[in-house]
Amino acid sequence: MAKTPVLTPQAEDFPRWYQDVISKAELADNGPVRGTMVIRPTGYALWERMQREVDDRIKATGAENAYVPLFIPESYLHKEAQHVEGFSPELAVVTHAGGKKLEEPVVVRPTSETIINSFFAKWVQSYRDLPMLVNNWSNVVRWELRPRVFLRTTEFLWQEGHTCHATEDDARDYARRILHEVYEDFMVSVLALPVLVGRKTARERFAGATNTLTCEGMMRDGKALQMGTSHELGQNFAKAFGVQFSAADGGREFAWQTSWGVSTRMVGGLIMGHGDDNGLRVPPRLASVQALVMVVKDGEGVGEAAHKLAAELGAAGVRVAVDDRTDTPFGRRAVDAELKGIPIRIEVGPRDLAEGNVNLARRIPGTKTPTAIGAVATAVTAALTEDQKALHDEALARREQGTAEVASIGEAAEAAATGWARIPWSAVGPDGEAKLAEQAVTVRCLLRADGSVPESGDEDGLVAIVGRSY
Amino acid sequence: MAKTPVLTPQAEDFPRWYQDVISKAELADNGPVRGTMVIRPTGYALWERMQREVDDRIKATGAENAYVPLFIPESYLHKEAQHVEGFSPELAVVTHAGGKKLEEPVVVRPTSETIINSFFAKWVQSYRDLPMLVNNWSNVVRWELRPRVFLRTTEFLWQEGHTCHATEDDARDYARRILHEVYEDFMVSVLALPVLVGRKTARERFAGATNTLTCEGMMRDGKALQMGTSHELGQNFAKAFGVQFSAADGGREFAWQTSWGVSTRMVGGLIMGHGDDNGLRVPPRLASVQALVMVVKDGEGVGEAAHKLAAELGAAGVRVAVDDRTDTPFGRRAVDAELKGIPIRIEVGPRDLAEGNVNLARRIPGTKTPTAIGAVATAVTAALTEDQKALHDEALARREQGTAEVASIGEAAEAAATGWARIPWSAVGPDGEAKLAEQAVTVRCLLRADGSVPESGDEDGLVAIVGRSY
Repeated sequence: MAKTPVLTPQAEDFPRWYQDVISKAELADNGPVRGTMVIRPTGYALWERMQREVDDRIKATGAENAYVPLFIPESYLHKEAQHVEGFSPELAVVTHAGGKKLEEPVVVRPTSETIINSFFAKWVQSYRDLPMLVNNWSNVVRWELRPRVFLRTTEFLWQEGHTCHATEDDARDYARRILHEVYEDFMVSVLALPVLVGRKTARERFAGATNTLTCEGMMRDGKALQMGTSHELGQNFAKAFGVQFSAADGGREFAWQTSWGVSTRMVGGLIMGHGDDNGLRVPPRLASVQALVMVVKDGEGVGEAAHKLAAELGAAGVRVAVDDRTDTPFGRRAVDAELKGIPIRIEVGPRDLAEGNVNLARRIPGTKTPTAIGAVATAVTAALTEDQKALHDEALARREQGTAEVASIGEAAEAAATGWARIPWSAVGPDGEAKLAEQAVTVRCLLRADGSVPESGDEDGLVAIVGRSY
Repeated sequence: MAKTPVLTPQAEDFPRWYQDVISKAELADNGPVRGTMVIRPTGYALWERMQREVDDRIKATGAENAYVPLFIPESYLHKEAQHVEGFSPELAVVTHAGGKKLEEPVVVRPTSETIINSFFAKWVQSYRDLPMLVNNWSNVVRWELRPRVFLRTTEFLWQEGHTCHATEDDARDYARRILHEVYEDFMVSVLALPVLVGRKTARERFAGATNTLTCEGMMRDGKALQMGTSHELGQNFAKAFGVQFSAADGGREFAWQTSWGVSTRMVGGLIMGHGDDNGLRVPPRLASVQALVMVVKDGEGVGEAAHKLAAELGAAGVRVAVDDRTDTPFGRRAVDAELKGIPIRIEVGPRDLAEGNVNLARRIPGTKTPTAIGAVATAVTAALTEDQKALHDEALARREQGTAEVASIGEAAEAAATGWARIPWSAVGPDGEAKLAEQAVTVRCLLRADGSVPESGDEDGLVAIVGRSY
């Protein structure tokens, strides 16, 4: 008898599978205001671990955390022309507060370049103050016409970094450090998502930037997800807000700047990059619970054995929890653990226990192996390392198989129906890009032939990665 | 020659001293929208450490983190009568978004009881789902007429916990666990602030609560600061939003609830509870940098010795940083470290070093002792423990000396000019409370004679703590 699937199969309807996972794994709910979301504890635990890992890496580059206000005077947005053009259609505006109409309307930040630059203008005085490296964990609001939980929400959580440098080179280097040492390293080594890192075309650039660098992940339906961006802002905002410093030689110069961010959108990337028809698959390095010790049913010594095993695993450095809710059927709890993507389940039941065994179920390869109790800690730590790598390698193979080498934009559009295309940028160009856009196909990024990130969009021999995207 | 003080002395003008510290120690700036604040890295590092310590304690009680949206439909606020009455005057309202007028205005959350209850109504089905313990780290907005950085800002950062329980007793017990195990424990043992924990009078209760428990700290000017509250909500919100569950006996019952929060206001409490005329004094357990190794001036082996010392201290578990910016005068850097309240400075200079010594300057007792290099690690770890305790004991002695035992509300008002009064609640009552309020003096909390927290405001023999407050 085939069991009824809990989730719509991916092959049948991927978007519906995505909604099913979010609901059945209790990751999030839609909020009452259109496009907002409630992140439930299971979903938030993913985000919390992401924050910790990203935050550690950001601090390692020398940046410090700070907090910049939610509310921005509307006039600030107008100081940088491209910026206001990009963000105006998405703004939420507070017109009344404290029971009165405000003299000047206030916008809820869609991003904080404008307001933080009004402070940089005060904080940055001398070349000795540079580089000034500030990061902010916060919520931002962009009114979305077609919201989708985690991927495109009216309010989302993120970090936004803002930096000032004495030279263009220093700003450029720092934008790349963030791209590689923070975002790429985190996504590849923790999220197990082999993102492509490259340069955006002028068309896809952040509003107000001179250059946008990006991490693009391939989802299991072949679409791309922009998972993080790092921008060079040149002196655009510095000039708009008067961020000037006394140089070592005594002159006054405008600062060179960067900004960069990753958001709760990464949770969507995690779901769609690794999830399967049984639910989420969480990479062990990310998982807040790496191993769940489950009491299958009550029996002599079962609860004690489970807690003892958990203590051993904890001592071995494994993030572990115990599920001894035996008033809920075991099958339901096991399905729930699968749905939530917990990397390893250790099923402790009376019958196996009598023989000195437990069952070790690994979510990522989908195996289930009877294991002697004394061997569990070693088996679990080995499995966590193996499965982290397996998940990454599987995603990498999928990306490689899902990427077609093509020569024309017609072929590129065709390839984008199921995956990505690699195509010489010279065969696309801004005109080809506009044509592809009519079919909702975009240039995700530009790379050099050797896969490295170009210094400019005008270099010879660049390759464009083309696909549909979220 | 007396040196010009960097800060206005506390005795001269306490509020101005407070503003001076915030500005000179680079803790925060006022935002462009009235009442908002920018928290600068030095200030944010304090908040980050507070978050970590409070978060660990919240999780230890079994609660999980989640995220509930910033935007609440205006109609939600109206579902609980006292709640809307309390918060309406402080709301910020979004009327336009995405370039259009909204059909229903949206309020920026002043607190999240209403919106989270609309979800509890869905998540809570059976007694098996209870207790449901959810915490949210976020920003909230309350339009303030008389804003003051950290203490009373239009936007502030906080955590708000929301819980559902099967019984009134369980809710009551949990509200007390949060009060004692999370807030009191954190404030006393980490912030070194000996807060009084007690029960609010009906007049001072949270809008919509049946009981509010509070932690009250005494600031160095004798005023009180409410530093954290834990509320029993009874079934008020559960009834307004239909949060019902199937009980074990099969009946349908409304959940019993709590909510509780601490905010960036604690940063203000830290400043005013411990700061002196030289700046902040940060308790060692809170400090993100507990020991700052300073290169006094360049010289043979000085930089190396400083870094070696820092590595040793780090290995001994001390949070340590090195200041080797010898292009800035040492005196200025030392004053800055004092202003920022770094518990210990280790001053490494060429002359002392030649004799195998460094100078160990302790911010809290204000001592400076030449110390043999080999003895530094031991001296520092001992000093951190001692100074944590000294700061607490000093604050406790100040609170005790600053609290007068009185019998009439006239005396209570008089005592409140410089500190607190302890007075039998029977000598005050709701009428006396209203009279005191005319002089801006309030009942901070009610206690039993033995100092414990009363179960009810109607118990015999209660003592009222009376004072002015922030």
